[in-house]
Amino acid sequence: MAEPVVIKQTFKEDVLALMARYSEFGATPEGGVNRLAASSEDKDARNFLCQWLENHGFTKLIDPAGNIFGVLELDPSQPDTSLFCGSHLDSQPHGGRFDGTLGVVIACVAGLTLKDMIDRGEIENSYRNYVVACWTSEEGARFQPSLLGSRFFAGNLSKEDAWSLTDEEGISLKQALSDIGYLGTDTPPKPDHYLEVHIEQGKKLEDAGLSVGLVSSSWGARKLTLSITGKPDHTGPTPMAVRKDALLAASRVIVEVNGLAQRSKDDLHSSVGRLNVEPNSPNTVVSKAELWIEFRSADEAQLNAAEEWLQTMSTEISIQTGCEITQNSREVRAVVTFDRTANGKIRKTLDSAAIPNLSLTTIAGHDALQLQSICPSTLMFVRSKDGISHTPDEFTSDSDIETAFDASIAALSALVSQRLPM
Amino acid sequence: MAEPVVIKQTFKEDVLALMARYSEFGATPEGGVNRLAASSEDKDARNFLCQWLENHGFTKLIDPAGNIFGVLELDPSQPDTSLFCGSHLDSQPHGGRFDGTLGVVIACVAGLTLKDMIDRGEIENSYRNYVVACWTSEEGARFQPSLLGSRFFAGNLSKEDAWSLTDEEGISLKQALSDIGYLGTDTPPKPDHYLEVHIEQGKKLEDAGLSVGLVSSSWGARKLTLSITGKPDHTGPTPMAVRKDALLAASRVIVEVNGLAQRSKDDLHSSVGRLNVEPNSPNTVVSKAELWIEFRSADEAQLNAAEEWLQTMSTEISIQTGCEITQNSREVRAVVTFDRTANGKIRKTLDSAAIPNLSLTTIAGHDALQLQSICPSTLMFVRSKDGISHTPDEFTSDSDIETAFDASIAALSALVSQRLPM
Repeated sequence: MAEPVVIKQTFKEDVLALMARYSEFGATPEGGVNRLAASSEDKDARNFLCQWLENHGFTKLIDPAGNIFGVLELDPSQPDTSLFCGSHLDSQPHGGRFDGTLGVVIACVAGLTLKDMIDRGEIENSYRNYVVACWTSEEGARFQPSLLGSRFFAGNLSKEDAWSLTDEEGISLKQALSDIGYLGTDTPPKPDHYLEVHIEQGKKLEDAGLSVGLVSSSWGARKLTLSITGKPDHTGPTPMAVRKDALLAASRVIVEVNGLAQRSKDDLHSSVGRLNVEPNSPNTVVSKAELWIEFRSADEAQLNAAEEWLQTMSTEISIQTGCEITQNSREVRAVVTFDRTANGKIRKTLDSAAIPNLSLTTIAGHDALQLQSICPSTLMFVRSKDGISHTPDEFTSDSDIETAFDASIAALSALVSQRLPM
Repeated sequence: MAEPVVIKQTFKEDVLALMARYSEFGATPEGGVNRLAASSEDKDARNFLCQWLENHGFTKLIDPAGNIFGVLELDPSQPDTSLFCGSHLDSQPHGGRFDGTLGVVIACVAGLTLKDMIDRGEIENSYRNYVVACWTSEEGARFQPSLLGSRFFAGNLSKEDAWSLTDEEGISLKQALSDIGYLGTDTPPKPDHYLEVHIEQGKKLEDAGLSVGLVSSSWGARKLTLSITGKPDHTGPTPMAVRKDALLAASRVIVEVNGLAQRSKDDLHSSVGRLNVEPNSPNTVVSKAELWIEFRSADEAQLNAAEEWLQTMSTEISIQTGCEITQNSREVRAVVTFDRTANGKIRKTLDSAAIPNLSLTTIAGHDALQLQSICPSTLMFVRSKDGISHTPDEFTSDSDIETAFDASIAALSALVSQRLPM
């Protein structure tokens, strides 16, 4: 059985101070951050992280996807196994300040804490290295797909495919990373275990009155883009019957996609978060619309059915509106189950440390889903007020952050000393 | 009775050559033009026009709305009455090359033709001046409302209100005109009569097998912008029931607005040609949508009913989706009847000149509607292939252009000599 560990209060203060500091990079008047991947605001936050890592004895590495690694060598003689901890610093447009950043901050200070505990003989190090990971472009806002850096790291996206992704302005990821000075060539260590601390983006913890939870599985997702081609024409004289209005077709798709999820009683979530229209002039019938559609469910069969339904429904709307509807891209995120054995042990560790915790499912995607495909991974959720995220109103209390830090140290100190309960 | 006039063939060649020349300014690979108001492409076309006017004995004037006037003094001793002829050079985004430009080109060459006929004693000049007018920003694509320059000229929009209009980038009309060197201070002459030649943007002439028609009246229009405010949230975990999705609300409005027109059997046209969404990220529920809605009808009562219906329908959708829906702006374009007496006489003139013509209604807005509020105005339509416009496929044949030129000269020579049939 792991004993509750004692953490110096100054480390908790470091966590809160660093959270405040990162909130300044891309700060918006509403209290959130606007820090799109590889933007100048992201660059500032990255530079701060790199400087901090170097100031605190970490070796900084940057890989070709711009992922930042801070390696803390605990036993340089055996560099083959590494305990990873991290998250991301990029945000949604006008997003919140906790999403991602909290996990990076906790990973940084946890490294120092672990080293301090080893130095003081409070825990024994059986692991070799501790690695802070900051993944590029988790959000999928500027570049799609989301989980970009961790996807590359896990071998699920080639360097060439990653580099050739473009944002709305046509700027490639390679160019964007190069522009901010984060197109690296380093090869990072390999992870034996990955821990990510992240705000919940849901209300389960709030409803249970708990600060933290461990995620056992993730919903799957299907992300599809549809391209709708109509015909530009004058919005005035053109008889209604001969118009081929791509925005009308898109609107029907959006209403139907929403209806499908509404009917599923929350077994299926759906959304259209992005829509581009051309020429977007008040006096011209919209000739082109592009939609970003998401379906999410814990059940792969439901996702398959939703995709089939979309095909049929699109064909009907295409016939009704005279517009051509084609699918441009399709991203499949499978239902993921986190390593049961490892996470069962970490749960027992938290229990031993007297940190009440909940078992949760995630619907949102996280870098830990990518890491789970190459090593046992743990995703720890922290209570988020009203369960909201991707908004400046996103909020997690200092007290919940401190509990999350306690829980992280309990898990990491057990992992690093391989004293996981059996 | 007016006698058929004889036009030198070289003038018709000038019209076709000038049409080809203007098609180069902002030419798109698809065969249309992309020449938004006060853009660099518009500047090039304007500079060409001004140079042409100066080369051909016109006095160039620019007013504060950037309208260009080419004054041909036929009798300098009596400068008080002027016969105006013109249209516009701006286009829709990726629009057609005939819309507007044809009217400017015909106005230019018609001036030379009239002067030549007066010089040769073929017609007597009882008017004082002939004025080519090129109106700023007819299209309402970059700046709203449409018919901007003619609206200002007719006294229906103040200089201050015009100048403070902004495009999507926040650039004011005043700034945009200043940037291209067309923020003028000249005071143009006053019109006694205005003639505008324009492609039909409908199929009535094609169906009748005729080249030209005279417009007797115009449908009215209501142009409304709605702002929809939802709540940004994560598109994954947020339960469907608590989302406030501004794009879903906007889509429902778009579907309903279309349905109203579909049910009206073409007594009412409707459209949503423009939609802006924020933050427009695939992973965030859309928090803000802005829609540009149009209703058009020959019947003011129908337009009033459509506006009332929109109010009720928006309220219902607001309740269903949890989004706030507010009306941002409202533009009323009344049903307009062109001066019956003047146009009856011009119709007889065309008949005498053996130019078959149709009596038409316009649904699209034109600068002539603004001019009709200050002087008798004549809007002449020219056959346009398949009735399409606001698209690169827009097309009017050389032969129809020549007939339109013949008809313009017949009308203008009758007007300038005050030999209109009684």
